[in-house]
Amino acid sequence: MAGRILLLVLFMNAVFFIVNAVPETCPADLGGKCGEDGEWEGEFFPGVPKIKYEGPSSKNPLSYKWYNAEEVILGKKMKDWLRFSVAFWHTFRGTGAGPFGAPTKYWPWEDGTNSIAMAKRRMRANFEFLSKLGVDRWCFHDRDIAPDGKTLKETNSNLDEVVALAKELQGDKIRPLWGTAQLFMHPRYMHGAATSSELGVYAYAAAQVKKAMEVTHYLGGENYVFWGGREGYQTLLNTDMERELDHMAKFLEAAAAYKKKIGFNGTLLIEPKPQEPTKHQYDWDAATTLNFLRKYGLLAEFKLNIECNHATLSGHSCHHDLETARINGMLGNIDANTGDPQVGWDTDQFLTDVGEATMVMISVIRNGGLAPGGFNFDAKLRRESTDVEDLFIAHISGMDTLARGLRNAAKLIEDGSLAELVSKRYSSFDTELGAQIEAGKADFEMLEKKAMEWGEPKVASAKQELAEMIFQSAL
Amino acid sequence: MAGRILLLVLFMNAVFFIVNAVPETCPADLGGKCGEDGEWEGEFFPGVPKIKYEGPSSKNPLSYKWYNAEEVILGKKMKDWLRFSVAFWHTFRGTGAGPFGAPTKYWPWEDGTNSIAMAKRRMRANFEFLSKLGVDRWCFHDRDIAPDGKTLKETNSNLDEVVALAKELQGDKIRPLWGTAQLFMHPRYMHGAATSSELGVYAYAAAQVKKAMEVTHYLGGENYVFWGGREGYQTLLNTDMERELDHMAKFLEAAAAYKKKIGFNGTLLIEPKPQEPTKHQYDWDAATTLNFLRKYGLLAEFKLNIECNHATLSGHSCHHDLETARINGMLGNIDANTGDPQVGWDTDQFLTDVGEATMVMISVIRNGGLAPGGFNFDAKLRRESTDVEDLFIAHISGMDTLARGLRNAAKLIEDGSLAELVSKRYSSFDTELGAQIEAGKADFEMLEKKAMEWGEPKVASAKQELAEMIFQSAL
Amino acid sequence: MAGRILLLVLFMNAVFFIVNAVPETCPADLGGKCGEDGEWEGEFFPGVPKIKYEGPSSKNPLSYKWYNAEEVILGKKMKDWLRFSVAFWHTFRGTGAGPFGAPTKYWPWEDGTNSIAMAKRRMRANFEFLSKLGVDRWCFHDRDIAPDGKTLKETNSNLDEVVALAKELQGDKIRPLWGTAQLFMHPRYMHGAATSSELGVYAYAAAQVKKAMEVTHYLGGENYVFWGGREGYQTLLNTDMERELDHMAKFLEAAAAYKKKIGFNGTLLIEPKPQEPTKHQYDWDAATTLNFLRKYGLLAEFKLNIECNHATLSGHSCHHDLETARINGMLGNIDANTGDPQVGWDTDQFLTDVGEATMVMISVIRNGGLAPGGFNFDAKLRRESTDVEDLFIAHISGMDTLARGLRNAAKLIEDGSLAELVSKRYSSFDTELGAQIEAGKADFEMLEKKAMEWGEPKVASAKQELAEMIFQSAL
Amino acid sequence: MAGRILLLVLFMNAVFFIVNAVPETCPADLGGKCGEDGEWEGEFFPGVPKIKYEGPSSKNPLSYKWYNAEEVILGKKMKDWLRFSVAFWHTFRGTGAGPFGAPTKYWPWEDGTNSIAMAKRRMRANFEFLSKLGVDRWCFHDRDIAPDGKTLKETNSNLDEVVALAKELQGDKIRPLWGTAQLFMHPRYMHGAATSSELGVYAYAAAQVKKAMEVTHYLGGENYVFWGGREGYQTLLNTDMERELDHMAKFLEAAAAYKKKIGFNGTLLIEPKPQEPTKHQYDWDAATTLNFLRKYGLLAEFKLNIECNHATLSGHSCHHDLETARINGMLGNIDANTGDPQVGWDTDQFLTDVGEATMVMISVIRNGGLAPGGFNFDAKLRRESTDVEDLFIAHISGMDTLARGLRNAAKLIEDGSLAELVSKRYSSFDTELGAQIEAGKADFEMLEKKAMEWGEPKVASAKQELAEMIFQSAL
Repeated sequence: MAGRILLLVLFMNAVFFIVNAVPETCPADLGGKCGEDGEWEGEFFPGVPKIKYEGPSSKNPLSYKWYNAEEVILGKKMKDWLRFSVAFWHTFRGTGAGPFGAPTKYWPWEDGTNSIAMAKRRMRANFEFLSKLGVDRWCFHDRDIAPDGKTLKETNSNLDEVVALAKELQGDKIRPLWGTAQLFMHPRYMHGAATSSELGVYAYAAAQVKKAMEVTHYLGGENYVFWGGREGYQTLLNTDMERELDHMAKFLEAAAAYKKKIGFNGTLLIEPKPQEPTKHQYDWDAATTLNFLRKYGLLAEFKLNIECNHATLSGHSCHHDLETARINGMLGNIDANTGDPQVGWDTDQFLTDVGEATMVMISVIRNGGLAPGGFNFDAKLRRESTDVEDLFIAHISGMDTLARGLRNAAKLIEDGSLAELVSKRYSSFDTELGAQIEAGKADFEMLEKKAMEWGEPKVASAKQELAEMIFQSAL
Repeated sequence: MAGRILLLVLFMNAVFFIVNAVPETCPADLGGKCGEDGEWEGEFFPGVPKIKYEGPSSKNPLSYKWYNAEEVILGKKMKDWLRFSVAFWHTFRGTGAGPFGAPTKYWPWEDGTNSIAMAKRRMRANFEFLSKLGVDRWCFHDRDIAPDGKTLKETNSNLDEVVALAKELQGDKIRPLWGTAQLFMHPRYMHGAATSSELGVYAYAAAQVKKAMEVTHYLGGENYVFWGGREGYQTLLNTDMERELDHMAKFLEAAAAYKKKIGFNGTLLIEPKPQEPTKHQYDWDAATTLNFLRKYGLLAEFKLNIECNHATLSGHSCHHDLETARINGMLGNIDANTGDPQVGWDTDQFLTDVGEATMVMISVIRNGGLAPGGFNFDAKLRRESTDVEDLFIAHISGMDTLARGLRNAAKLIEDGSLAELVSKRYSSFDTELGAQIEAGKADFEMLEKKAMEWGEPKVASAKQELAEMIFQSAL
Repeated sequence: MAGRILLLVLFMNAVFFIVNAVPETCPADLGGKCGEDGEWEGEFFPGVPKIKYEGPSSKNPLSYKWYNAEEVILGKKMKDWLRFSVAFWHTFRGTGAGPFGAPTKYWPWEDGTNSIAMAKRRMRANFEFLSKLGVDRWCFHDRDIAPDGKTLKETNSNLDEVVALAKELQGDKIRPLWGTAQLFMHPRYMHGAATSSELGVYAYAAAQVKKAMEVTHYLGGENYVFWGGREGYQTLLNTDMERELDHMAKFLEAAAAYKKKIGFNGTLLIEPKPQEPTKHQYDWDAATTLNFLRKYGLLAEFKLNIECNHATLSGHSCHHDLETARINGMLGNIDANTGDPQVGWDTDQFLTDVGEATMVMISVIRNGGLAPGGFNFDAKLRRESTDVEDLFIAHISGMDTLARGLRNAAKLIEDGSLAELVSKRYSSFDTELGAQIEAGKADFEMLEKKAMEWGEPKVASAKQELAEMIFQSAL
Repeated sequence: MAGRILLLVLFMNAVFFIVNAVPETCPADLGGKCGEDGEWEGEFFPGVPKIKYEGPSSKNPLSYKWYNAEEVILGKKMKDWLRFSVAFWHTFRGTGAGPFGAPTKYWPWEDGTNSIAMAKRRMRANFEFLSKLGVDRWCFHDRDIAPDGKTLKETNSNLDEVVALAKELQGDKIRPLWGTAQLFMHPRYMHGAATSSELGVYAYAAAQVKKAMEVTHYLGGENYVFWGGREGYQTLLNTDMERELDHMAKFLEAAAAYKKKIGFNGTLLIEPKPQEPTKHQYDWDAATTLNFLRKYGLLAEFKLNIECNHATLSGHSCHHDLETARINGMLGNIDANTGDPQVGWDTDQFLTDVGEATMVMISVIRNGGLAPGGFNFDAKLRRESTDVEDLFIAHISGMDTLARGLRNAAKLIEDGSLAELVSKRYSSFDTELGAQIEAGKADFEMLEKKAMEWGEPKVASAKQELAEMIFQSAL
């Protein structure tokens, strides 16, 4: 095969696709100049104004109805509670391709190549998008923003070139919420990266993470994420799970050491997911990941990035996994999306359920916010949504939903009756004996004596329906 | 984009992939001459002999341990009970690509193009594969075996060229178990084919099915399959489900009419699947599909192609959906594969569970076999299985499992005790009153009289554990 | 065992339970006179006033915030759109018992027996409850409202005695939305009722349904429901599915005949459920049930009672199954409840999700309402909710949620933009050729000609995110 | 209610049930004298002989085909690998009752009471059952073997009385595999035991566990189990999860202290389950439970009791959770059962899948056996299995399946090719650099240098299909 013209057509979550029967004009309906090989001139989103807050009664899809960045809620600006970030991969590298379908999206600025020039043009589109949305943060994988080279060295140099442009475009205000390394798409990672059965792959992954941490640091990134999509197994029949987990621990240990070495102060985040692409992923859910971190003495070096769709795939509500992370002091960031309750794979939809958003925001408020973490929109347009404006509509809808969730959560907190219902439930522990129990000073003999003395305990109603009624009244 | 060199890189279930860092030699370990642009010379699978039956004690992975084609079981040769077919797409177009991963398979004969020359070379590989396995049937999608052209006319002519070669290679003995049209991969089908919201797509799909039926007929295909991967919806919010279902009925009606017009006598088969790629597919499961066919008066024109992995995704055991099809007189074909019980998407694995295979074969025997249908291996190598020999191992394993299932089912039938347990359970209906009830002649008044007269009915144990013990003893 | 004192302790969905360590006072906190063996005097719910509409800003849990019975929405009173019904079994026979837990509810009026006197007292409580809620309909199983006797005759006579009281208490205004026979709790039905392997059980079930239809008719019931909780199988190994389905068809045929005979004009409703208690129930979902009805020529005699929690257990959204019933002209009634998206069994919770309620009401409005069907609250208090007032709170919350859904659905319809988005999607079929296709007059040859002529069809964005934004804006 | 005759009718997992229309004769078909109030005379299972090993060709349901207790496999007797135990609750207190059904089982020795006399008679039946099966271990909940009294003191004294008999019946050879306290059935535990919102319940639970540990110790029990069926939540809206988890930790800490105090040397086991009866249980799966134990410093005091059906409900294969426990050094016991892959609740079926049993035994062999743990049959007859002999058939079937799994696992180990395939996969780590990585001495800079030097790593096929073929060949 060597000697033939090679095209790197590998994208994040899809492979770019050029059909013979190419549409004569770009299908995106908002105008703009259709992609040519040369420099892109003018705006990428010419028909889209800067998105403004117009309030709940607005019928304008290109406006915020609930998100009012500077408005203060519970003592903090909405933008500081929410710290939104655009995911570069879904927004600029998502093509609509999937296991049963070819790409559907032909953004006007794309020229069908994976060149450095195209990478730079795309980066400019990203910053125009951020600016029009009024969002100050973005997230990226190394391989999404710059193409692979023939060698790792060349790949790193490609990355440097694009990152330099990003740094320039960021200016003072914008910075990455986090960066990460794409350790799942390339065939070399088919058996895992840190958990690959091949030592050479382990080393390659280390080199890739090293570089990704460096560029994240260079860009002023606030966090760095590990999502181990290939760290798991397809079948236990051919897998040495114990050895793989040991390798993963050593890898993360080395990552934490390197972070310190380069003076990167951002948080290291692990993002749990139960399965897909692997049958079983080692970072199954929050609790499983915490067990791993505790076992290997890594708890102090990492926090968790909870993704709602991943939580539901693992059999929990999103709120559950957020709370599990929070009460372990480990809630670092949220990948704000949602799944379909009847679907068994990751759909990465924009969250539009107001009730769920309210639950999410309750956890965030209890956590005192997420900073230096935030909300990354790890969410993508449906494959069938092919207008450029759909990119805006989807983000606006997702942002408004969380903003509405924040308003509702604040209402609930200010009303206080739900919190009161809960604290009242446990009030029997707000006693001397309760304090003894909670201090570990009540042994079985003492407790038996009490139980004998008291007779059958009284047990009050849990008032779940009342709690649900109160919750709903805030929506 | 027009004017640039365009490559058709669209494959069934994957997109072919060429990395910069291409392996210097082909990774497949069985020798053979690595793919060059010119004609392929010599064997595709030089290290693989014709696979022979060596019996259960053989340790040779490239032999059958249970499948002995000419051996007679319950009065019929194994090959006639099983009527195996290789799925062209998984075996020759599967690349290992997926939503989170690029291709992993670089078969030595692939040259990285989607040219007609490559299509023909691949077809030769297919027939060598069939011959070495000793399998007489194959299945295909139109777009897998020949590349898209710039126009439908050119596409059809590409197809004709490859089909002519296939016809020649088939000889006397080999023929398609079935053909089908790929109506889900191309972006034009993103909203459906027969159920697309766009009339132009409906027409295009009709033209494509027309052609696919013609070539299937020309090749002596025994059946023709409809799998409606895009016939469904992502959300009801933007969908007119009633209108879409009406369109689907009209489409299938026209297909049945065209079949007659061209004198094609093969069975038309519908393959149910609950979801993926769509959130909800109209042919959800056997019963749903039957409801549709009955509603629109299409029952006489179609049968069902039951896929085990689809059945389990819809919440049924494979055996259940086979039996549902069978007792409605509609079991036409089986897509022999299996899923992972803990995974919520279609994994299309080769079936290796002997118990499940035994259940499947019980249904097949009750059905008097499947002819003119058969077993299509709608199953693929795991993404991480990258040796050419893995293609053989997987098929041998799948064939042996069903052969073992057939032997077990025969043992159960010959033993008779399970059948006796069942018929004994219902023996109270083998009476005069039972016959009246079954003839619809027992009205509520008469039955009430009997109930009053008899008092509390006796109810015997269902003996499930005994049934399971008998079943297991045959494995 | 004969000769001992026997207590009938069988309840709907639970078994009544008397602990040694009985609470000294009734745990229900709203006062009332704790249950004694004699006649109950005074109110059952002394602390609860007639529930009134107080509007969304009310903080009073015992008031309606959204349900305003006489208010007109889209030309019809809310009470006529919603036609609420209280389920006698959950509300008055639910004890909180389950597979892992004993009863938790000790309503003050219960005396611990299953006597006729107790049945009558409970019936009075039911009517006070209806009256305080302002609900005009109720639903019942035969065995919930009256105790089993020693013989079927005695059982029927018990039923008659209680039904006579119910008739009296109903007065002019109140009537059953529907009645049904409990064919799943008694051990005689362990293998099914109409599908039991025992003929005697089939006859007994016929007698029981006959009587239940009679009393439903006598009480002025508007519908009669069949829920086949035991009509299915635990394993196919011991089951003759075909014969069982034939029996079920004959049974329903006889039921339809008897309905006519007695002049009962109510609708016969089948309630699909996929599984639980059986591993597989024959009335799996709407489509499966319709296939059954069509196969056996019973379509004209029945409609469907869709339960939301059953729909989601079968892998569909509630809205999907409602729409499936509706577009087949078969939507007759709704069992208004919801499940937990992460739980694999029927939780029968009161629906409190406003988004889901809005979807439900869209289907109801499209159906032109549900009459003579309505909304039955097949929903129960959580086991841990043990205050009498919880019964009210739960119903108010469920009613308000649907009322809010109705208001939202009306907003969406009045706004019109969602409907417009949908009809625009399909506008290419609102043409001459579209009409030909829909009339079944467009054959494959004609369509191919068009497809060749037109070239690659244009396919517009599905605008799912916009549709979701519009939908959410109405909540 | 006080002053009336009170019957304690609370059973494990069901409530005993006496219908009016009681069968005139006992339905169990194996003879024996139908239960009378007085002393039971003669055998409980008169028709059942001592179960013997007759080998795979035997057709006798009341014989072992694969379990040959004294036969040596891999250097250990089968009985020592398998250490079977009968679960008292399923076998002697299971009545077939469930959320939709009344009891179906009327064992001849039951008299319909929950008296101490009946408890003793049942205990005798248990020991005859053990003896006929040839099983030396049993497991029990406190409340299953002896009835509740009016006070905790009386309850404890009831327990002592029955335990004294059990001690006597045990003789030299038989002992409990483990005991446990039933902390989920009684209404007092509706909000949890150790995690109840009521302090009085916490104390009561402590007293109950204290006593249960004492009697387990007295009977020579080898382990003590905690299954927290109510330790979880129904909704987070009314729950303080953090406080509940803290309470749970204090409770277990006190239990471990009390164990030492009384000189009980058995292992304390925690049994994970994801949900049911609660929506979310804190001991979700092995990894979640380990996280909890590590967080609260309890790792050294506990091991895990893995139940296959619980593992699959949590989204894992049984083998996965066994391996997770094993590689953490925490595999203490197995609750040997299985679920239905299409069912979302705990079906507690006897395991009859030979493939799964082989996987289970692979884990057990790797663990060097389970002692002092073993296999407890936490499995029950289907509700419809009502013959006394079904109790034997089910246990024989479950024992034979695991015995067959042991034989298969031994075959695989002796053959060695599967182990070789696995160790070969990881052989690149059996090098100097591999050792450095595994010792934590390979930092990112060194690894990057290697990666640069080596270029693109080679990645071999995972050979999953070959592994499956080898695995299947051993079945």
